[in-house]
Amino acid sequence: MSRTRGPDPLTLPMPDLRGSFPGPFAVSPYADAVEEQTARWLGTFPLTGSPGAAKALCNITAQGVARVLPTADRDGVVLCAGLFVWLTAFDDVHGETEGGRDTARLVRRTARCVQLLAGHDGPAAGDDPCTAALQDLLQRFRARATPTQYLRLTAHLRDSLFGILWEAHHLGEPGRITLDDYCAMRPHTVFVRTVMATAEIMLGYELTEDQRALPAVRELERAVADLAGWINDLASYAKETDRGGPDPLSLPTLLVLHRGYSLEEAFRVASRMCEDQASAARLRITELTAGGENPLMAHAHAVEGVAASYVWHIGHARYGR
Amino acid sequence: MSRTRGPDPLTLPMPDLRGSFPGPFAVSPYADAVEEQTARWLGTFPLTGSPGAAKALCNITAQGVARVLPTADRDGVVLCAGLFVWLTAFDDVHGETEGGRDTARLVRRTARCVQLLAGHDGPAAGDDPCTAALQDLLQRFRARATPTQYLRLTAHLRDSLFGILWEAHHLGEPGRITLDDYCAMRPHTVFVRTVMATAEIMLGYELTEDQRALPAVRELERAVADLAGWINDLASYAKETDRGGPDPLSLPTLLVLHRGYSLEEAFRVASRMCEDQASAARLRITELTAGGENPLMAHAHAVEGVAASYVWHIGHARYGR
Repeated sequence: MSRTRGPDPLTLPMPDLRGSFPGPFAVSPYADAVEEQTARWLGTFPLTGSPGAAKALCNITAQGVARVLPTADRDGVVLCAGLFVWLTAFDDVHGETEGGRDTARLVRRTARCVQLLAGHDGPAAGDDPCTAALQDLLQRFRARATPTQYLRLTAHLRDSLFGILWEAHHLGEPGRITLDDYCAMRPHTVFVRTVMATAEIMLGYELTEDQRALPAVRELERAVADLAGWINDLASYAKETDRGGPDPLSLPTLLVLHRGYSLEEAFRVASRMCEDQASAARLRITELTAGGENPLMAHAHAVEGVAASYVWHIGHARYGR
Repeated sequence: MSRTRGPDPLTLPMPDLRGSFPGPFAVSPYADAVEEQTARWLGTFPLTGSPGAAKALCNITAQGVARVLPTADRDGVVLCAGLFVWLTAFDDVHGETEGGRDTARLVRRTARCVQLLAGHDGPAAGDDPCTAALQDLLQRFRARATPTQYLRLTAHLRDSLFGILWEAHHLGEPGRITLDDYCAMRPHTVFVRTVMATAEIMLGYELTEDQRALPAVRELERAVADLAGWINDLASYAKETDRGGPDPLSLPTLLVLHRGYSLEEAFRVASRMCEDQASAARLRITELTAGGENPLMAHAHAVEGVAASYVWHIGHARYGR
């Protein structure tokens, strides 16, 4: 399918989130140091192509994580930045580029990651920076997390890897995805639930199962999970379509395909959807922090940081806006 | 690739496991009742094609689980039998049959399962017996397991689903898989780690992280995990090749392809590999039970039951021996 013809993507409507997440957002004092340290780590584990790409990736990731974790210690921010550099590089290099051409190859590469996540003896890591880097990250997370936190993290990482696989199977064929299925998978492809799991580890709190099942907690997490994916779709649309080729697998594309909107209408509708989720998230944050009860308050602030980071990062140069 | 020419598979060498797992194996007194109840459950959730296939599936699964859990209560055996009927039916119907033709379709179906495993609001279950059945099973497991046991179970289920996906991507192309990668993935495709996780729930014990990391525990689990997949490969080879078509993705096929063995030599080598793992498992079971310390003893007995079940089930009529 050729890409939707229409107006210059850079002039399309965007959500106004200033009411719910006005910014400026708190940022870790270690942001720049973490960016440098992450770039050095990426020197040890060359996960991405050009030095320019590596630099840009370290910048947006370290600065983004510094907004998720403004109060965490430096090692915690470094470790999370490393993990999201790894995930983003895996997605770019192996998911989209390699996986779009040969999904079986991506499945085999993912299999090696699954072994590590499952805690089984991995393949010899030496000759494969992607696996070696994941092994390094998981060892450091395991040393820091409680057993349950580590189980949660590795579960979410499996879902993120599955999301990359799911996306690779539908590049160039967005029409095979329904809107419901897209919205259900989008949080995994944008890694937002994994970000939440890392925040819980680095901020040193842990919800009970009953707390995790509270409607306010579930709705806050769902609202931020949806928001993260959708604003990323809107912000990255210009960059994605700039490459030419088929329409990106994204919310505006599916609104055009399945609802018959023009691209501009799709952006308007999607922007409203983002604003609604941002408002819902803000309401739940207010509700959960008003109680003054920990770890619910800690969790509300953590998820607020996650939302802030995604809201912040759509303005980053990676997306050409 | 056309299938390996050679002797009648029914005359090929098979492992002699009588030294390590002599049998007869203890069996739950509820075995027949569980088989009937599982057949009724499969009436509510029609997961498989013909009534004959459903009956055979309930028979081997219920009787197999009854050998994993000879001392568990009836509801526990019923619930595990339901889960492994579900997994096997998913593998047969969606993994091999549908997934071999259209991996993207299998990925979309798996995505709905991943939502349920992640505990997110699933798609409306009514119109899809596969998703509805999984939802039913997970609700019942969640009510019975501790939060950590449930996290482990859902992690292993993700790996089993990934294993099905991995296999679907390589049906008819076993040559793209190395022996190491095959051996690493095989436990997931035979669901054995998931069986271990369910046994831990139904027998009501829980290892600490330190116990789980003991070399004796890891080696016992690994030996039984390898054994389960390999004996299944040997026992099912005749049935798999009887269908015609390409060589099955299995240990003998890969030994022929990558080591240059004849089929008969491959069966002899694979049989020896099975016997070695069975001996290693038996040693570790003896070691862990000699200590008399729970939950390590309980775990050793549980994994012994898992091994017994796989050793038992290779003689079942499903494999035509």
